[in-house]
Amino acid sequence: MKISGTHYRTIWPTDTGSVRVIDQSRLPFEFATRDLDSLEDAAGAIRTMVVRGAPLIGATAAYGLALALRSNSSEAHLELAAQTLEATRPTAHNLAWALTRMRRALAGVALPERAEVAFREAARICDEDVEQCRAIGSRGLELLRRAAAPLRRPLNILTHCNAGWLACVDWGTALAPVYMAYDAGIPVHVWVDETRPRNQGAALTAFELGAHGVPHTVIADNLGGHLMQRGQVDLVLVGSDRTTSGGDVCNKIGTYLKALAARDNDVPFYVALPMSTIDWSLAEGSDIPIEERSPTELTHVTGKAASGALESVQIVPDTSPALNLAFDVTPARLVTGLITERGVCPASRSGLLGLYPDQGAMP
Amino acid sequence: MKISGTHYRTIWPTDTGSVRVIDQSRLPFEFATRDLDSLEDAAGAIRTMVVRGAPLIGATAAYGLALALRSNSSEAHLELAAQTLEATRPTAHNLAWALTRMRRALAGVALPERAEVAFREAARICDEDVEQCRAIGSRGLELLRRAAAPLRRPLNILTHCNAGWLACVDWGTALAPVYMAYDAGIPVHVWVDETRPRNQGAALTAFELGAHGVPHTVIADNLGGHLMQRGQVDLVLVGSDRTTSGGDVCNKIGTYLKALAARDNDVPFYVALPMSTIDWSLAEGSDIPIEERSPTELTHVTGKAASGALESVQIVPDTSPALNLAFDVTPARLVTGLITERGVCPASRSGLLGLYPDQGAMP
Repeated sequence: MKISGTHYRTIWPTDTGSVRVIDQSRLPFEFATRDLDSLEDAAGAIRTMVVRGAPLIGATAAYGLALALRSNSSEAHLELAAQTLEATRPTAHNLAWALTRMRRALAGVALPERAEVAFREAARICDEDVEQCRAIGSRGLELLRRAAAPLRRPLNILTHCNAGWLACVDWGTALAPVYMAYDAGIPVHVWVDETRPRNQGAALTAFELGAHGVPHTVIADNLGGHLMQRGQVDLVLVGSDRTTSGGDVCNKIGTYLKALAARDNDVPFYVALPMSTIDWSLAEGSDIPIEERSPTELTHVTGKAASGALESVQIVPDTSPALNLAFDVTPARLVTGLITERGVCPASRSGLLGLYPDQGAMP
Repeated sequence: MKISGTHYRTIWPTDTGSVRVIDQSRLPFEFATRDLDSLEDAAGAIRTMVVRGAPLIGATAAYGLALALRSNSSEAHLELAAQTLEATRPTAHNLAWALTRMRRALAGVALPERAEVAFREAARICDEDVEQCRAIGSRGLELLRRAAAPLRRPLNILTHCNAGWLACVDWGTALAPVYMAYDAGIPVHVWVDETRPRNQGAALTAFELGAHGVPHTVIADNLGGHLMQRGQVDLVLVGSDRTTSGGDVCNKIGTYLKALAARDNDVPFYVALPMSTIDWSLAEGSDIPIEERSPTELTHVTGKAASGALESVQIVPDTSPALNLAFDVTPARLVTGLITERGVCPASRSGLLGLYPDQGAMP
């Protein structure tokens, strides 16, 4: 994607051997990059959400493993690095997927070559993610084209959290079809859920869509149901952090509520995801571990103060506890369809097996 | 309710002829009062949410009319005052209800006595609101007692926005049963929805419950559905800004999403309201005017900065528009029951007529 005319990915290796990422904790008010030079840098960036979004977490973990091997390519250090990275965030399946794939690529590689092989494999994971997101975009574009065709007004799409290019390496999952539809001249308008408590919608999705010129409106997470009751949402389109083999969709907390409202108002509810998000080992969404994050993310809000600096303000009384769970699971019965790089399928085991008869064997 | 050992109502006349209110725009970090001395003061306090909550809006409008008549008791000024106050906020039915009742009390009163009669009637409205909330508390208490009886752990109640004593003159609607249950030794725990964009849950409900000692946890509005899926909510209990004669419930934006989740997880969904909230002239919730407020309430968040001062931070990019609708309508089919000062009834025309065979004639 382009920012002020320059093409960016969210993560890339530099000439000097660092891995550079866009610091998403400063957006939308500051566009800055950060260099990762060690396992600790990479794990910290994932943990503190300098990088976030399931596909980007996977890509960053892959590079984190490569950085770790550059300092120490022993089997023990590989093991430690994989464990450290896997523990950063428990829900996104792409993390475990990327680490498994990296270890497979490293199997049998002599210690002196390990770091180089790892960097090459991490780059390949990134390139493939871009191509998968592009394919998701193409598949979703046809769906949006059909939905928009009978309308004499812009197609109203509601999205939750950020499943755009900032969540991936480029393009995005849920937003890739939106960008392609916009570029194809299909009139679209996106309702952007603020996405409390981390405000990824208000901060990141609004930033992305604005930078691309896509018409959009930021709304409280509370508003989507009412808009659907009024007929002001034609389609819901979200990403996923883990999707089970049965089609249950784990995504940012609050997604389930939107799926319920979509069902109650006959609004189609689609989920866009690359195959790396599918956890073939789990059939039931209730088995997905749900990350609990610091209550501070809820009790304090960071934004641009009158001075122009980023500041945090506290919005909950000192003595009130808060609970901050980051994801929920939308049961497959509420999902109209899954959009993957291979096509659109029903959210069910048979639907997924139709696209992945190999049951998700790694490419 | 008591704050630091002193009993407070949210609104009361002072010895010097002012009407004093708690400034709710400073809570939870500053407890301050503000004196209203004119129609403009009262209308401004309602418009800017220094006072808010349907019953308290009604009470403030009643006093606002009295203040207006003290400066000019003519029929024309009465008319102007009523119009000014009614225009402050369009959704809460208690506002129109209180103004109608005031004008009825003033009918045929000679101009020199009008202000005094109006102050007396406003005080009566406040006293009756306290008694009605107390009665709602007693009715709801029995319901909570039954729900808690089979449990070997605290009863988990989820509430949205603030329908506590700060929303009324005292006691509250949805929270009155909670206070009474707590006082009766029934173990309760309240999940407090943050309630974006104005954060009335995080700021006001958390403050109220904390001051009374009721165990509670603040959560993002996005979390309630997940908690219900996990069996961690036994009952949803909210207030209402307007309830139709058919039992459709207009309440703070996002209430509808919680009602959907409650239905999907077989969690009872109750609404507590005094009769002044019932709009007998409307059968359909879709006919209720929904207030649109400034996008700034969503794009900027006010809280306590590191300095200790109240500050606002911006969380949405400068160029992204935002939409801020303040209420939604939960259809009667999703409501388990209405708790009024006269008892608990089904959310239906026949249910309401069972409690109000007089169809809501003013007391």
